[in-house]
Amino acid sequence: MVDGLSFRLVKSCPQTWGRLGELTTPHGVVSTPCFMPVASQASVKAIAPDDLRSIGVDMLLSNTYHLYLRPGVDVVQKLGGLHRFMAWPGPILTDSGGYQVFSLAPLRKVDDDGVLFRSHIDGSEHFLTPERAIELQEALGADIIMVLDECPPHDADISHVEQATQRTQRWAERCQRSRRRQDQALYGIVQGGAFSVLRQWSARAVTDLGFDGYAIGGLSLGETREVMHSMLEVVVPLLPEDKPRYLMGVGSPEELVEGVARGIDMFDCALPTRVARNGALFSRQGRFNITNARFKDLDMPIETGCDCYTCKSFSAAYLHHLFRCQELLAYRLATIHNLRFIARLMGDIRRSLDDGSFLSFKESFLAAYHSTDEEVRLTQKRKWLRSRGQPST
Amino acid sequence: MVDGLSFRLVKSCPQTWGRLGELTTPHGVVSTPCFMPVASQASVKAIAPDDLRSIGVDMLLSNTYHLYLRPGVDVVQKLGGLHRFMAWPGPILTDSGGYQVFSLAPLRKVDDDGVLFRSHIDGSEHFLTPERAIELQEALGADIIMVLDECPPHDADISHVEQATQRTQRWAERCQRSRRRQDQALYGIVQGGAFSVLRQWSARAVTDLGFDGYAIGGLSLGETREVMHSMLEVVVPLLPEDKPRYLMGVGSPEELVEGVARGIDMFDCALPTRVARNGALFSRQGRFNITNARFKDLDMPIETGCDCYTCKSFSAAYLHHLFRCQELLAYRLATIHNLRFIARLMGDIRRSLDDGSFLSFKESFLAAYHSTDEEVRLTQKRKWLRSRGQPST
Repeated sequence: MVDGLSFRLVKSCPQTWGRLGELTTPHGVVSTPCFMPVASQASVKAIAPDDLRSIGVDMLLSNTYHLYLRPGVDVVQKLGGLHRFMAWPGPILTDSGGYQVFSLAPLRKVDDDGVLFRSHIDGSEHFLTPERAIELQEALGADIIMVLDECPPHDADISHVEQATQRTQRWAERCQRSRRRQDQALYGIVQGGAFSVLRQWSARAVTDLGFDGYAIGGLSLGETREVMHSMLEVVVPLLPEDKPRYLMGVGSPEELVEGVARGIDMFDCALPTRVARNGALFSRQGRFNITNARFKDLDMPIETGCDCYTCKSFSAAYLHHLFRCQELLAYRLATIHNLRFIARLMGDIRRSLDDGSFLSFKESFLAAYHSTDEEVRLTQKRKWLRSRGQPST
Repeated sequence: MVDGLSFRLVKSCPQTWGRLGELTTPHGVVSTPCFMPVASQASVKAIAPDDLRSIGVDMLLSNTYHLYLRPGVDVVQKLGGLHRFMAWPGPILTDSGGYQVFSLAPLRKVDDDGVLFRSHIDGSEHFLTPERAIELQEALGADIIMVLDECPPHDADISHVEQATQRTQRWAERCQRSRRRQDQALYGIVQGGAFSVLRQWSARAVTDLGFDGYAIGGLSLGETREVMHSMLEVVVPLLPEDKPRYLMGVGSPEELVEGVARGIDMFDCALPTRVARNGALFSRQGRFNITNARFKDLDMPIETGCDCYTCKSFSAAYLHHLFRCQELLAYRLATIHNLRFIARLMGDIRRSLDDGSFLSFKESFLAAYHSTDEEVRLTQKRKWLRSRGQPST
């Protein structure tokens, strides 16, 4: 492995594929399984680094695509790199920009050389290649950087997905060759859509190249839960035991538990922070919306027993009031609660992996947690994916 | 004075009317001159009680009009009163609702009995009387409450202002008679517009009634600075030495200094927080806008030497980026800086009153501080006053 970066497998669950691990980076050690909140534009929306620390967040993800467009990678570099720019001293992972280019930017044109796209902000034209994706991420200076991948939509046909998977593989090689910094980990990405044969091919090909960690991309894009789970079950056994495994774009509380059970070490997702800003708050019983009239005069915290700043300080009635009045404080307080919920969940998962009780933790968590109805979930997810590329995203 | 409430004049400036004092309330002691940030809807926009504490805010103002409409005074009372509802353990002052009714609510009709108005939120009709204003404020439970006053626009003619001033006086008597709680201070209000004779009459009449403190209302409403200063110079000598004097709706850094020099002990204003959300930030040199291109890659704090969380943690370039991207964090960080600027300014004023150097502090502050051009200021102020009553205010 590269300078100051390593992964240690601490313990494996005897009944599931769950694993307890330790990820060492130049900016600190992270216990895995871990969840990374998303700081798209060098800010986890509505909260600051002091909040992240008190929530217990260990590691963040930031988007190269967004930072490249605003404020520009040169500005971040001039300001001392991403950690210093956003005043976050802990570990950071940057994605390559690929996912945003393929989901957010209009008018893209992809060939083997790279991908031509227009900015969703001002329509300006840009060309992203594997070499450029590495160059940008080396300038940003995250602890972990990603290869450029082509990410087709969840309902693309097999020939489209096959072509994208093979191109992703060729781009991974080029990314590997072009890297210069030795103090950043570079992760490869397994693609292959919902097709087992392509997933298997991709997992074998990318591990043959040899990376510091392996991500599974192209999931949580509107396919059903069953498809995602079966793809994980195809891919994970083909990944090396001694490297971290990262499931991109997941997730919801229940999917974090399911992912850990299938051998995943790292997750990122904007969902906990995005739904918080709509008033959707997590509890061990499931997600509820604080704007509902039943909270109007409820003199109880959002979630009894939660130790977050929001629950320790304010009633559900006050949160309800702030959301009804569209007070800016609402978004910070709700974000703090949802991220603290996820941080506590990941802590509980790690403790149960440590003492061998993960399977029973998983079963009791999922029995108590009322998941969003699958059909509603898919409708919301697909609607959200379509709405991206609008100025508000 | 009433239970647990008192005011002590500590020291008077030998060269100006400035005074150092100490205001004791059931929720803590406040050194004066003091500035109260505005928490219209039981929240100082974009920041939380933990921020207020770290900024060094001693006391808040909240608006009875807003709380009456949302969430309803009954809800706040059920949740344990305003302090507990908003998790602010320090002193609070509520206004009577009069100013908002006269500036914000459409379709109002005023007679001696009270004022009929429509909610600016849903158009529902409400009737506010002096007795009801006291009842609502007693239910909210602030440390200091205000009489109901009629507040005419700054350009009203003398007969309109005379009528309003006399009605304010009759309402003050009714407020005084109707109060029941002995653990809240009740302040009278001097009105009289820009007319010295009316201001004198009002100051004499309201002090004859005898209140726990005296506010000067109906200023900072679009009149020139000279008019405001001359009205203060007419009114302040007629107010008793041993009671706190509160200038409502002021202000900007330069007007705080000018107000202290004219014998004012207490101020409130939404300006520091409102302009912060537009990117207008205070420094000892004056107000500047962080969205200006010159900050794009400036690797310095907003204000060198400022000890606020924002300045200690982030560069001007990062703030510029957050504002350009409309990241929610921008509003919190800018609000923290502006309120900390005001808190430091008030601390400096109090120290200079204590050591006898206030006049030279005032002169050097005003010499360094580049005020907003008076014509621009009045245009902005009047535009903002007209725009109130829109859902966004």
